[in-house]
Amino acid sequence: MIDNPYYSHEFHGDYELVSIGRLDLEEGGSIPDCRLAYTTFGTLNEARDNAVLVTTWFSGTHQIWRDQYIGDGHALDPAKYFVVVVDQIGSGLSTSPHNASGDNAAISMSKFPHVRIGDDVVAQERLLREHLGIETLHAVVGGSMGAQQTYEWAVRFPEKVKRAAPIAGTAQVTPHDVLFSRSLVEAITSDPGFAGGEYTSNAEVVAGLERHARIWAVMGFSTEFWKQEVWRALEFDSKEAFLEGFLQPYFTVMDPNDLICMAWKWQRGDVARHTGGDLDAALGRITARTFVMPISEDMFFPPRDCRAEQERIKNSEFRVVDDVLGHLGLFAVAPTYMPQIDAHLGELLDGPA
Amino acid sequence: MIDNPYYSHEFHGDYELVSIGRLDLEEGGSIPDCRLAYTTFGTLNEARDNAVLVTTWFSGTHQIWRDQYIGDGHALDPAKYFVVVVDQIGSGLSTSPHNASGDNAAISMSKFPHVRIGDDVVAQERLLREHLGIETLHAVVGGSMGAQQTYEWAVRFPEKVKRAAPIAGTAQVTPHDVLFSRSLVEAITSDPGFAGGEYTSNAEVVAGLERHARIWAVMGFSTEFWKQEVWRALEFDSKEAFLEGFLQPYFTVMDPNDLICMAWKWQRGDVARHTGGDLDAALGRITARTFVMPISEDMFFPPRDCRAEQERIKNSEFRVVDDVLGHLGLFAVAPTYMPQIDAHLGELLDGPA
Repeated sequence: MIDNPYYSHEFHGDYELVSIGRLDLEEGGSIPDCRLAYTTFGTLNEARDNAVLVTTWFSGTHQIWRDQYIGDGHALDPAKYFVVVVDQIGSGLSTSPHNASGDNAAISMSKFPHVRIGDDVVAQERLLREHLGIETLHAVVGGSMGAQQTYEWAVRFPEKVKRAAPIAGTAQVTPHDVLFSRSLVEAITSDPGFAGGEYTSNAEVVAGLERHARIWAVMGFSTEFWKQEVWRALEFDSKEAFLEGFLQPYFTVMDPNDLICMAWKWQRGDVARHTGGDLDAALGRITARTFVMPISEDMFFPPRDCRAEQERIKNSEFRVVDDVLGHLGLFAVAPTYMPQIDAHLGELLDGPA
Repeated sequence: MIDNPYYSHEFHGDYELVSIGRLDLEEGGSIPDCRLAYTTFGTLNEARDNAVLVTTWFSGTHQIWRDQYIGDGHALDPAKYFVVVVDQIGSGLSTSPHNASGDNAAISMSKFPHVRIGDDVVAQERLLREHLGIETLHAVVGGSMGAQQTYEWAVRFPEKVKRAAPIAGTAQVTPHDVLFSRSLVEAITSDPGFAGGEYTSNAEVVAGLERHARIWAVMGFSTEFWKQEVWRALEFDSKEAFLEGFLQPYFTVMDPNDLICMAWKWQRGDVARHTGGDLDAALGRITARTFVMPISEDMFFPPRDCRAEQERIKNSEFRVVDDVLGHLGLFAVAPTYMPQIDAHLGELLDGPA
């Protein structure tokens, strides 16, 4: 276990931390005491049918959903919906390699077991049912790895999911995504300070974390983002300043093992595991009204890949979000981004299932 | 100096190696004895006006042009044209960090000076004029960094260049390209075996070179290349086998300092240096009949970026080469690739200037 101050209420505001008990994992092994961090907004109605689950992406937590996506005036309106954001396993807030202690001491750091997207969804379903009394979801919404979890929910628990909005992600990871995330992981693990995952502080791996951030710069934003110098809107005066003042610090505070735990999941997200590898059959299980929402300039979850999946989902629509930022448009930086998200999500959430 | 057997006639076939003497460099410093490797195909006619210069790309040499692009039945037909392929400085065949010895001993390895695309073009012009008696070029043709040299030729020596075919490259490097190539360089320099450029064999840097190759896998090929498993056409049975049997070995035989020398040039290719930063003015100097030929699925020299330059060149056309491979379509692997190249190049070379 490592004490990393980034993963705290100071940096992430209010959240609950609840144990769902022992979680046996798809790949074998288990998390003896699986704790999930989550936040809620709004009130569960008497019929218990207005809950919207939000899942989180690689390196992201409930924080960005709270700050950018949820609130009065947004589709995710707490006046209408009981919004539950659950931080994924490995996020650093829920049980993760760096914080495994007590009953989880045996799986600390490099000994943390491999977790699957499916494990997250099983854990989330248990949290919702046993701790929040939620049996069905008005909707599941998530971006990137959160979209992977959204698809997993819709395929694994079709009777529980009425609506689904996978944003900038796919149901089945692509080989290109596997290669991209592998390069991200290698930027970290190749740092001698990583020490096979047994560093004593993330500061020892800062060089690797910075290289990791700079590979995100290449793939996370679009070629046009850099060409148009969109970072100027964030009040930086050079791309170097943007890297050093935003993208590198964003990642260097994080825990290397936690990032690697999430990347391992990302590389293996695949709903076709439920159907012997048959993606058509897996997507055919989805009964949720589904809006597939890629970002136009996404370099690694390109609209083309999302389209190929949307066409296999019965009750679905293809809604492209135009954003020159590319994948990291998810940060909701462009003033034109949230209005599109809210328009699509609002139509989905407020419409029939 | 390092003895690297890859950079030899055994692996690269016939080529000439000629000293053009001392080359003073744009960034300061000089190469005391600049040697250029080159090959020729066909015969210079009496009017000395049928010469076509071919420039080389990052990690590539005359070899791939000889094997894939030049010959009977191709646009680059030695029966019509005197084709001269010049290996760039840092290619490992021409003067490069790893082979600097004798009069160049003082600039060996990490002491090699910074070379610019403009230095290559000045060196090539001297080689052509002083050693081959060529004052004007029927055409200049090059891909990727070779396109950067092609543009440099057309802007710097407009009176000498009748036709230009920049393939999959730009006249002014984009910020995204700078970031991408920086990640490539960092994959190498972060390897402890690199030892600040003073390794004693490229084998000491194999881990870094392999990571470098795997970043090429992410950006060099397209998302569709991986999704469609196009590598099967190259007789591999998994993407891992393709990486381990093709892409990694392609790079691990090479010299790290040589790759970094080329990447440094790539990151700074910019014809607007000639016009105080005014790209319109620089491209306005081009008088050559110019076919701008991006590859449709290129992830880092996307057609959009090439189009923006083509529109600023008077006597130009925009000719997209469709290839699912993306940038590394340049390897001419797809059976549909060379027919397109030959059609466009043939029309350019055989038509009016």
